[in-house]
Amino acid sequence: MSQNIVVQKYGGTSVGSPERIRQVAKRVAATRAEGKKVLVVVSAMAGETDRLLNLAHEISERPDRREIDLLLSSGERISAALVAMALHSIDCPAISVTGRQMGLLTDNSHTRARIIEIDGERVRKILKANQVVVCAGFQGVNEQGDVTTLGRGGSDTSAVALAVALKSDICEIYTDVKGVYTTDPRIVPEARKLETVSFEEMLEMSSLGAKVLQIRCVEYANRYKMPIKVRSTFDDDPGTLICEENPDMEQPLVSGVMCARGQSKITLKGVPDQPGIAAKVFCPLSDQGVSVDVIIQNVSQEGHTDISFTLPKTHLTEAMEVMERSGKEIQAAEVIADSHIAKVSIVGAGMRSHAGIAARMFDSLSREGINIMMISTSEIRISCILEEKYAELAVRVLHDEFKLGENDSEKPSQSAENNQKAM
Amino acid sequence: MSQNIVVQKYGGTSVGSPERIRQVAKRVAATRAEGKKVLVVVSAMAGETDRLLNLAHEISERPDRREIDLLLSSGERISAALVAMALHSIDCPAISVTGRQMGLLTDNSHTRARIIEIDGERVRKILKANQVVVCAGFQGVNEQGDVTTLGRGGSDTSAVALAVALKSDICEIYTDVKGVYTTDPRIVPEARKLETVSFEEMLEMSSLGAKVLQIRCVEYANRYKMPIKVRSTFDDDPGTLICEENPDMEQPLVSGVMCARGQSKITLKGVPDQPGIAAKVFCPLSDQGVSVDVIIQNVSQEGHTDISFTLPKTHLTEAMEVMERSGKEIQAAEVIADSHIAKVSIVGAGMRSHAGIAARMFDSLSREGINIMMISTSEIRISCILEEKYAELAVRVLHDEFKLGENDSEKPSQSAENNQKAM
Repeated sequence: MSQNIVVQKYGGTSVGSPERIRQVAKRVAATRAEGKKVLVVVSAMAGETDRLLNLAHEISERPDRREIDLLLSSGERISAALVAMALHSIDCPAISVTGRQMGLLTDNSHTRARIIEIDGERVRKILKANQVVVCAGFQGVNEQGDVTTLGRGGSDTSAVALAVALKSDICEIYTDVKGVYTTDPRIVPEARKLETVSFEEMLEMSSLGAKVLQIRCVEYANRYKMPIKVRSTFDDDPGTLICEENPDMEQPLVSGVMCARGQSKITLKGVPDQPGIAAKVFCPLSDQGVSVDVIIQNVSQEGHTDISFTLPKTHLTEAMEVMERSGKEIQAAEVIADSHIAKVSIVGAGMRSHAGIAARMFDSLSREGINIMMISTSEIRISCILEEKYAELAVRVLHDEFKLGENDSEKPSQSAENNQKAM
Repeated sequence: MSQNIVVQKYGGTSVGSPERIRQVAKRVAATRAEGKKVLVVVSAMAGETDRLLNLAHEISERPDRREIDLLLSSGERISAALVAMALHSIDCPAISVTGRQMGLLTDNSHTRARIIEIDGERVRKILKANQVVVCAGFQGVNEQGDVTTLGRGGSDTSAVALAVALKSDICEIYTDVKGVYTTDPRIVPEARKLETVSFEEMLEMSSLGAKVLQIRCVEYANRYKMPIKVRSTFDDDPGTLICEENPDMEQPLVSGVMCARGQSKITLKGVPDQPGIAAKVFCPLSDQGVSVDVIIQNVSQEGHTDISFTLPKTHLTEAMEVMERSGKEIQAAEVIADSHIAKVSIVGAGMRSHAGIAARMFDSLSREGINIMMISTSEIRISCILEEKYAELAVRVLHDEFKLGENDSEKPSQSAENNQKAM
């Protein structure tokens, strides 16, 4: 049964100034005027979270995480109060609600808390009275009643979690872009806004660095099958719907091309090919909290092999320190770092049912003389590690190859043909 | 039984920058190192409350008071988190606590809530564990769990209320001045810092506009006989102790000279001297929320009289509108406004037991040719309304007359002689 409830989440840019807050209020009031019960979730005003973090870091090198949570949660409370005021000033009844007041209970992991449950009793009462609820995003409380926050981008997760708790029909995420694009329009001006993206595709895109939605928010939405609409606060474009795959519809072969910079690579050369070597390489890294992405190990030659792996560039220095030690221990011939790499990926639910996509990807890159250093795949994603200088070219080539631009969307049947040609 | 607890409240200037917050932390840690249990109460960083209020007023002409409370309470939460971080960074264990977490329950009057009770259970536990508690001042919650605030300067009241709830020995209020002065040092450079001031004197001084302490905080301290020490955050001056009058000690005749500007006066001339006239003049004013200060009514002449009263200059325009109407109704000959007046007062607990202070005051003013327009008194205060242009001169004259400056404090016995001379 539809509850006629809409959840609308507005990001930091959308509430970045009094002028913009008034615009948000107009949109919310218009939705209410359509007969909907509206729950608004807001982020901190653009720049506010950074301002507060800077204050913290001026005072302490490693500020306590519990205090960081109290500090940062203020940003969203301020936005919530201001949006409620803006609604009042256009005669739209509204009440602001904090993390505690909405009953958003989390675990005890300050600065990256996970939601345990949302009581939502007070929120339901306000909606029932036909008033708009304006929720401070990003925050909850733990069982002791201390303020916790859900990590960067946590307001998106708050919004989806509230939508689920209230059995809302949809969770609308308002931001400063029109929706999810086939690729970064700054690299490919013809990039096309997608009408729909499946949860699985969006999960891959978010994990590859698509900033439009945090991966935790998409995971949450996927778990409860809560459709998300990503839209712009500043126009009336219908945006992109993120929802379950419709098995009756043909899925696009490739939905998007993603490019992740800030990657680096470490190679251990001439490693004795013995059982337990991989553990000796990767356990010390994970102990240091370094997250490794793609790993390849060459075929053994004369009892020796090479191991390469990628990791965020920000962790390269500490990872190299660890590797210089491990390298000696396992008698590697050499440890080499490369901080000029990028990861270019294609994502598409249609890959499941269509073969040959990988071949087309490798072929089109090789035609441009782009060397592929490493490959990693999932059911609906293929990623290639390549030299950073080729990153933009690779994105453009793949965007073209899979006809993702405006006015040239590719049909699966047609592409199946192309595949055979390309193979 | 002493609990060995000290409450220290730091104002907005004292926590106005990361540098200053570090200074506050040092002072708090030093107090703890002396073996005290320290509870810190903080205001919002200087300028923060105004910044937030400006945002509110850019969005709404008359922002909702409940939302104002959520908005403004963020300022003190930010300070509390930052001070706790600063304490951690010098290895002093500390935990921040919000209005709700300290169990500060208020009534429902948003933006000017009154404290109902302080549970303080959590605060007691933290102190018992020998950790510093850093409380966000100015805020509480009502029974619904909504954030309330105690009005401007409310952090002082929070501090005194917490000191009372915890049976602290003393409530120290740290600010940007050394203590309570005999008068405004900007008017009289020889103004002397007072070592002690009685609650009653401080109540009079605060109601006359001494900005160092809000009157509500002094009322609270007086009700529970909680001594307050006003000190500077920026030096080691012992400050001013505000406490009960010690009946064994001789009280100073006059402790301070106060000057209130921003006053105005309305005179109704030729009013028929009939019963009920005063009500017809003042009820419409109080209906408009205009607070009247001093009132005089001349002796009736030929069945007519003049009524004058003073009020804050900010209310003069609306009060005149009301008076023009009432004036006609009661057939007053004329309604005259005067916005160039000031109120100069002397306050001193010694007035109770010593006659002739008023005469000395009037005499010394008349010697300088200063005309007194109106007079109002309490047991320990005499106020004169005079032309604004004479305000500073009057303050200097009275400060001299009662020997309030550095190095010339007056003994009551000696003054009794002077009185007789002056009479």
